[in-house]
Amino acid sequence: MTRVYNFSAGPAILPEEVLKEAAEEMLDYQGAGMSVMEMSHRSAAFKQIIEDAEKDLRELMNIPDNYKVLFLQGGGSQQFAMIPMNLMKNRVADYINTGQWSKKAIAEAKIYGKVNVIASSEDKTFSYIPDLNNLPISDDADYVYICHNNTIYGTTYHDLPDTQGKILVADMSSDILSQPVDVTKYGLIFAGVQKNIGPAGVVIVIIREDLITDDVLPGTPTMFKYKIHADNNSLYNTPPCYGIYICGKVFKLVKEMGGLTEMQKRNEKKAALLYNYLDNSKLFKGTVAKKDRSLMNIPFVTGDDELDAKFVKEAKAAGFENIKGHRTVGGMRASLYNAMPLAGVEALIKFMTLFEAENTK
Amino acid sequence: MTRVYNFSAGPAILPEEVLKEAAEEMLDYQGAGMSVMEMSHRSAAFKQIIEDAEKDLRELMNIPDNYKVLFLQGGGSQQFAMIPMNLMKNRVADYINTGQWSKKAIAEAKIYGKVNVIASSEDKTFSYIPDLNNLPISDDADYVYICHNNTIYGTTYHDLPDTQGKILVADMSSDILSQPVDVTKYGLIFAGVQKNIGPAGVVIVIIREDLITDDVLPGTPTMFKYKIHADNNSLYNTPPCYGIYICGKVFKLVKEMGGLTEMQKRNEKKAALLYNYLDNSKLFKGTVAKKDRSLMNIPFVTGDDELDAKFVKEAKAAGFENIKGHRTVGGMRASLYNAMPLAGVEALIKFMTLFEAENTK
Repeated sequence: MTRVYNFSAGPAILPEEVLKEAAEEMLDYQGAGMSVMEMSHRSAAFKQIIEDAEKDLRELMNIPDNYKVLFLQGGGSQQFAMIPMNLMKNRVADYINTGQWSKKAIAEAKIYGKVNVIASSEDKTFSYIPDLNNLPISDDADYVYICHNNTIYGTTYHDLPDTQGKILVADMSSDILSQPVDVTKYGLIFAGVQKNIGPAGVVIVIIREDLITDDVLPGTPTMFKYKIHADNNSLYNTPPCYGIYICGKVFKLVKEMGGLTEMQKRNEKKAALLYNYLDNSKLFKGTVAKKDRSLMNIPFVTGDDELDAKFVKEAKAAGFENIKGHRTVGGMRASLYNAMPLAGVEALIKFMTLFEAENTK
Repeated sequence: MTRVYNFSAGPAILPEEVLKEAAEEMLDYQGAGMSVMEMSHRSAAFKQIIEDAEKDLRELMNIPDNYKVLFLQGGGSQQFAMIPMNLMKNRVADYINTGQWSKKAIAEAKIYGKVNVIASSEDKTFSYIPDLNNLPISDDADYVYICHNNTIYGTTYHDLPDTQGKILVADMSSDILSQPVDVTKYGLIFAGVQKNIGPAGVVIVIIREDLITDDVLPGTPTMFKYKIHADNNSLYNTPPCYGIYICGKVFKLVKEMGGLTEMQKRNEKKAALLYNYLDNSKLFKGTVAKKDRSLMNIPFVTGDDELDAKFVKEAKAAGFENIKGHRTVGGMRASLYNAMPLAGVEALIKFMTLFEAENTK
């Protein structure tokens, strides 16, 4: 068995230790005589799995007691609708547009109310985070929405917008658990787990309790009410049990490794290596404003589409998978999630150095 | 490793062969160098997985070309809202109430329109299927809804209602793939896979193409539109990839075993053994009208709550898991899904026989 270096933006690389444990427990979870896939979600064994997962995530992210943690389905795309359906009391919200995922969230919110795009970086292919000074926050905005890390474009918020007291809602799908977060600054954080945590099919919602109410928009499906899931500890209906089980294993591993401070240290080291190489390369260059660079997703280009394609092809042959950039940016993208080992980044840089030597005169 | 006999109503027993294969492929799917959990849903490898799954399901169920097959999230509970939001053009629908899951579907549909409960078996704790003759189908009903197999109560439709030309919608969560189905009789079939197919977190929707339109109720979230998923072959957003992969393995296995005709034969044999035992037992008795008995879920009682509890406890100690009945029926329930081997049913009956001998005078 040869494992590749998988730089996919998501679904993405998972820790080998976790996969090994999952394989070992596949037919018999800790003496239960069955797989976690086969367990009733009402069983004591699964209850322990989901409670441990929540407890460990709370500990990792230092989530205060007045926040609920929900394990839901439907990914970020479903949150794009759930958020306005639950939070848009005035039917007004402010969004910052920093890429394709913000745009989708904006389009969805427009079904339910007035959306003010209070800042945007669309003018330069989302290669930066807009100036956050003096944002025109709407007086009647129900919340302010950001996409905290932009998977496609490789930008991230190193500071948060001043929402002037409005609820801050953040999509952290691609950087949750990459570094410590001050949860108290947010009313709601959500993250599809398929980038930095586990397998696709689970979305985590961390929501302040006072935002969980029955006062939702008319026509909101029951499954879209945060309250129904909060009241039932994510067991209103059958949850994606196996995905939650894998997430739980990742939480435990991240704790053992030293938690989010340690993750940040490792992620900063990995990203710095690649950014430093890009800044000094004569062939490759990053596509993002330096001040807004993501720790997780690093797009880069040669400036020559044919050469980019050649690189992607040769990289794949050398065991670097999913290094091709998103079609809207072109070039390449290396996603350096928690599970990507330092050795993977070092190997990639070595390969890029060789490619550079061979392809520059 | 000791595997138990798992009689859970869902999530439920899965074929050991499938779990073994999944364990073997956990770190390296067929030379890809990564787990299916780590694969981009846009990758060629995953595309093959989802396409094969659809193809095999089409073949198994003989699904005509004018039906789409969708792999979605949110389970049956989400379908309870998606169905009216997509199909309720007149805002009227007819429902037959045969248990808790019909009731939930009815309650949800009432958010969106007028619901006529045209038949019900609630008067006798849902222990039978209502008389289907001369149903008062509403002239303006957008569809007629049934729960084809009632997991909790152990009843099933051996005949279908005459909908007088209205679209028939069926929840087949607990009996999909248990026997051949004439898909052409339905406008829409859905099934949460966590009973007779795979791990929780995937719901399969089989829908006639003419029912897939942009003409949905105002305020329908994008993720609730069948059209968006149909247009994108279930890849509008990141699907529950790993769950689909396991479903695909089950489809292949069922095909190898001889398809749904063979499944029906096996299921009839297993169910007949247990029903025959119940009909002749002096201690245990079935709770369901004989003509409406389910092949999949078989509730039974002793008539004495204490003795029921004793049985459940001793059965568990003997390796028969999740045999306790639903709280609304009491007693016991044995779910005999496709993956339950004949040996499991035989062992259960042997155990019941011994228990009966020990507990009757």
